[in-house]
Amino acid sequence: MAGNSFGNIFKLTTFGESHGVAIGGIIDGCPPGIQLDFDAIQNEMNRRKPGQSNIVTQRKEPDTVEFLSGIFEGQTTGTPIGFVIKNTNQKSKDYSHIKDVYRPSHADYTYEKKYGVRDYRGGGRSSARETASRVVAGAIAKQFLSAIQINAYTSSVGDIFLERPYQELDFSKTESNAVRCPDEATAEQMITKIKEIKKEGNTIGGTVTCVLQNVPIGLGEPVFDKLHAELGKAMLSINAVKGFEYGSGFCGARMKGTEHNDLFNEDGTTKTNLSGGIQGGISNGMDIYFRVAFKPVATVIQKQDALNSSGDIIEMQGKGRHDPCVVPRAIPIVEAMAALVIADFYLLNKMYN
Amino acid sequence: MAGNSFGNIFKLTTFGESHGVAIGGIIDGCPPGIQLDFDAIQNEMNRRKPGQSNIVTQRKEPDTVEFLSGIFEGQTTGTPIGFVIKNTNQKSKDYSHIKDVYRPSHADYTYEKKYGVRDYRGGGRSSARETASRVVAGAIAKQFLSAIQINAYTSSVGDIFLERPYQELDFSKTESNAVRCPDEATAEQMITKIKEIKKEGNTIGGTVTCVLQNVPIGLGEPVFDKLHAELGKAMLSINAVKGFEYGSGFCGARMKGTEHNDLFNEDGTTKTNLSGGIQGGISNGMDIYFRVAFKPVATVIQKQDALNSSGDIIEMQGKGRHDPCVVPRAIPIVEAMAALVIADFYLLNKMYN
Amino acid sequence: MAGNSFGNIFKLTTFGESHGVAIGGIIDGCPPGIQLDFDAIQNEMNRRKPGQSNIVTQRKEPDTVEFLSGIFEGQTTGTPIGFVIKNTNQKSKDYSHIKDVYRPSHADYTYEKKYGVRDYRGGGRSSARETASRVVAGAIAKQFLSAIQINAYTSSVGDIFLERPYQELDFSKTESNAVRCPDEATAEQMITKIKEIKKEGNTIGGTVTCVLQNVPIGLGEPVFDKLHAELGKAMLSINAVKGFEYGSGFCGARMKGTEHNDLFNEDGTTKTNLSGGIQGGISNGMDIYFRVAFKPVATVIQKQDALNSSGDIIEMQGKGRHDPCVVPRAIPIVEAMAALVIADFYLLNKMYN
Amino acid sequence: MAGNSFGNIFKLTTFGESHGVAIGGIIDGCPPGIQLDFDAIQNEMNRRKPGQSNIVTQRKEPDTVEFLSGIFEGQTTGTPIGFVIKNTNQKSKDYSHIKDVYRPSHADYTYEKKYGVRDYRGGGRSSARETASRVVAGAIAKQFLSAIQINAYTSSVGDIFLERPYQELDFSKTESNAVRCPDEATAEQMITKIKEIKKEGNTIGGTVTCVLQNVPIGLGEPVFDKLHAELGKAMLSINAVKGFEYGSGFCGARMKGTEHNDLFNEDGTTKTNLSGGIQGGISNGMDIYFRVAFKPVATVIQKQDALNSSGDIIEMQGKGRHDPCVVPRAIPIVEAMAALVIADFYLLNKMYN
Repeated sequence: MAGNSFGNIFKLTTFGESHGVAIGGIIDGCPPGIQLDFDAIQNEMNRRKPGQSNIVTQRKEPDTVEFLSGIFEGQTTGTPIGFVIKNTNQKSKDYSHIKDVYRPSHADYTYEKKYGVRDYRGGGRSSARETASRVVAGAIAKQFLSAIQINAYTSSVGDIFLERPYQELDFSKTESNAVRCPDEATAEQMITKIKEIKKEGNTIGGTVTCVLQNVPIGLGEPVFDKLHAELGKAMLSINAVKGFEYGSGFCGARMKGTEHNDLFNEDGTTKTNLSGGIQGGISNGMDIYFRVAFKPVATVIQKQDALNSSGDIIEMQGKGRHDPCVVPRAIPIVEAMAALVIADFYLLNKMYN
Repeated sequence: MAGNSFGNIFKLTTFGESHGVAIGGIIDGCPPGIQLDFDAIQNEMNRRKPGQSNIVTQRKEPDTVEFLSGIFEGQTTGTPIGFVIKNTNQKSKDYSHIKDVYRPSHADYTYEKKYGVRDYRGGGRSSARETASRVVAGAIAKQFLSAIQINAYTSSVGDIFLERPYQELDFSKTESNAVRCPDEATAEQMITKIKEIKKEGNTIGGTVTCVLQNVPIGLGEPVFDKLHAELGKAMLSINAVKGFEYGSGFCGARMKGTEHNDLFNEDGTTKTNLSGGIQGGISNGMDIYFRVAFKPVATVIQKQDALNSSGDIIEMQGKGRHDPCVVPRAIPIVEAMAALVIADFYLLNKMYN
Repeated sequence: MAGNSFGNIFKLTTFGESHGVAIGGIIDGCPPGIQLDFDAIQNEMNRRKPGQSNIVTQRKEPDTVEFLSGIFEGQTTGTPIGFVIKNTNQKSKDYSHIKDVYRPSHADYTYEKKYGVRDYRGGGRSSARETASRVVAGAIAKQFLSAIQINAYTSSVGDIFLERPYQELDFSKTESNAVRCPDEATAEQMITKIKEIKKEGNTIGGTVTCVLQNVPIGLGEPVFDKLHAELGKAMLSINAVKGFEYGSGFCGARMKGTEHNDLFNEDGTTKTNLSGGIQGGISNGMDIYFRVAFKPVATVIQKQDALNSSGDIIEMQGKGRHDPCVVPRAIPIVEAMAALVIADFYLLNKMYN
Repeated sequence: MAGNSFGNIFKLTTFGESHGVAIGGIIDGCPPGIQLDFDAIQNEMNRRKPGQSNIVTQRKEPDTVEFLSGIFEGQTTGTPIGFVIKNTNQKSKDYSHIKDVYRPSHADYTYEKKYGVRDYRGGGRSSARETASRVVAGAIAKQFLSAIQINAYTSSVGDIFLERPYQELDFSKTESNAVRCPDEATAEQMITKIKEIKKEGNTIGGTVTCVLQNVPIGLGEPVFDKLHAELGKAMLSINAVKGFEYGSGFCGARMKGTEHNDLFNEDGTTKTNLSGGIQGGISNGMDIYFRVAFKPVATVIQKQDALNSSGDIIEMQGKGRHDPCVVPRAIPIVEAMAALVIADFYLLNKMYN
């Protein structure tokens, strides 16, 4: 109820503040008998971690995950997988200046009003550091779903858009550049843009596109828990996300029925895929694709007005080591959340067979 | 788990196919002591029902809700509210031609593959008829939340956009025209457009904008169950929805941090509201607003190829009485789902105080 | 949360007060493709209904269940099964004398204090009439679980105990007498006892034993949701239940380890079964058996002191047509709840295979 | 779903095997602003831990709990409380002899059949070591519920029963002896009995009685989630529990209505309390009391037949340091689970006020 769990069958519960001792979580409902590739898990962590390139925050956090249970001789046992990630680089002093301050477009004010108390250091629970735990669980879900391909990539940074459709892209190139855009030329423009923005002490938004391939037919529940509704919730639960669309998305709202309908082939596949691989909330075996909008990071390295707890407007200067654009590091998080949604529906669907 | 429930504390479970005996639901967790206005509930039903104007489907369904429990002497008692809405105008014969046919961009194919069996009459469970039950529950949630204003309206039909921001609109005019756009001039254009489309035997998409005012500070849970994540899921669970954005939405992804941040006033309100009334997943007391994209209805009154269960492509001719544009009738559904989300978080939040 | 649902995968939600228009429920998560035997369902209803013999209440209620959805051409479709049972014999006037009165050992007082309002007619929501909806769902669960035998019977009435162990009984005789005890001689004693008690205008408690045979190995979740923990909750949720024990039960607490341990046969079965078919919360393939204690019905047809809402002790005379002993009619309810627990775990377990 | 969580609002999820790196859990939904007494938490851990007296297992485990999140400056913040307890004294070698062996009346066989794999060391997840995490959460729940008294005590060991009703006992004496029976004379008999049993290399069962005082009126949900149904499930989820009864319990099944009914006083209290403080599933303000049956520990230090994974019956000799009677160490676990149930309903009930 308090909203720190995701999923029903394959279920992740997370804990931890950015500047506490550790963050971590429990994965409950992971099937037994999965031989885990721990390097692959750590690799996902590395894709998310700070300091990996010169266009992301320069904080250094090793983000090593330690598993405490649910794994025996390298294999999942069906019992809950507990894990922790130590917070090694907390630098709490960096945040003493915001103890009594509500930064604009941060969660400081709403947490204070909701709970009456908050761990103000580095955003506490509202920090995107929490998403490291999601990446751990998502990495395990990916291994469980090894037949399904889940590929996210940066599809825009500010006004620089990757115009090519996903079908033309080579996803193996996503990791070949710091911005995680599989089109080299566009990637370069994006990187240049982010460097400019960083130099200004400013930040910039962007979008992530994610493609799921080889998803079995039949996943998703037809009424409230439609497959795209859960994917949407999953994405909107990631820090800084402002929008979600799948298939034709907002463009679909401008189209006519005869343009939008996906005609069938005899094998049940469709000639077009404006539906985005989902009909009536249930996967139809075609590629699932969706797009997620991220706002610019709220912490800018410029002077800005903030509110303090006495009700005064004060000028503050953003400090610390923040991301000029959250999108490159969000790629593995988007993939992780997609994997969690699919794993959950995949297991649920076994009851129908 | 099978996805026919929505909400945790204020919880709706629905049942029913479009051409069965009846549809209905159970509202569990509605607080006791609410004196219900049954005319207001029926009024919401009338806003959604077919046949209300010449730009919606001409099916006639009275859509009268019958309450079976949970209400005593006009007042909620805190026990579950069971209700049914009879299906009076089923015309099952209209649908015999689709018994073995999978219509393009409908849920016929995915239901058949998921369940191995389906009630093919009129879409069965995948029909938007199910949303009538949501409107009942939403109408009660609205009465519970009487201090909060929830106003949705048509913000685009095809390429005709209502360009004015919501702050300039008079929501009392939404009901004054058939398309439910509170700007008269734009409404006329939209109506003309829908009539054209209808004449073609075609359909058209559109968007709905929804504004929530006077929402208390503190609603929403900070991690997975962010207020906007639940609103997003709620909207994406409505038939034909392809996208959701709140606050700055997809536009926010093109902005810089210094442009996007909402600076505070001394009283905790903000000078701008690109955040859309939510910070870190929690309401901040400002207006909450979001936009929902609806695809064009898949049933067109033209010849189209479909697939039959033997794997043949056959030509079919859409029949029946369908909506040329789903958006006008979707307005009360969007409001109902928003009310359900808010009611749920409102009750959950009482536990913190 | 408000406690009107049972189960996770195979989930029942009920609604309805004893003297409202109707009671009913929604079964969500019933697998598709089950060809239903409607006579068998009605037969379970008849086992529970009032007026079936001269040792139960003489109220007449046909208790005919009407299905509204989720079934097509006699088969479940995987969509929610909505159903209603009309309240045909409400005689509200019988209850006007208790409008402002809290009867001893009834739920009148606690409902009033919890909700501030209540439907005082015939116990309202706290009436055992609600269990009719459980019997409907249980009857469907039994058909889903057709390979499993679920047999409950009356094992004591007051001080008259059926001393023979269940292994010696012929369950086909349970329905051959009004008290539902498969041992004829003991049944006669029990019936005589109940008739005596009835003549006094008094009531008497008793116990029900239930045996589940052919339950697959592996059902139940090992920590909080142990199979016997859910069975216990299920039974304790039935009106008038005061205790639950399985396997050796309270007697087991007097034994030594060497006496209590069930030694294995080579095929994994055990030579004894003090464990009651469950080890570590998980079924082991042996018979599951448990015992449920029912208190005497609180409504007696004698003068008794009660409390009124003004805080006065008043003398009241129980009226109406009440059961002198609840146990005979509880048999199908115990079986229904057991079936719901097993169906739920059965489906959940498919996710591990 | 996989059963490692307990509670809805105040929710505990646990992880960990007896011989893994650590056990632990996440408490989600604990209200903010509770100033924690960490010594009191550790004190509860000490009551449960091995090696505390000469009638319990002589294993040495410090059982120090380390909190990782959700607490700031000694106060709960409303965010999830993550905690770990290191397994310091694992002695895995003790268990190598049971690698391929299913011990009688243990969970070895059912885990293997359910999951296909298991951590065989010391019972793994089925070990009662898991309950240490419950005691942590229960200790916090107790502090949240500081106005409510929760007192459990040993009410029988084998055939030695504490005959005095709880009203005559001084709960402050429970901790004054190793068996946790507040009656000194009975305690001595129990201790003597356990020492005898231990000398035999055998084990013995027993019962725990628990009394909850000052519980507010109105806790519990009336249909499936009755207060006593959740208490029953909570207790039955504890290792080795075979039965649960509250109020008059199984004795109530032998009584007449006129004997069993609790007549009111003018202030709404009752003259007797056979109901056990709960009417219709809802607390009525009177003392809540219940009794829990524990079987004898299955590990005996004698030769016994077991089954191996090849299907052979083999003789094995129990080793290790096991409890001759689980009851004394179960006292804090029973109290912890009771506290979790009450905390959950207490928070849920706030929505009605």
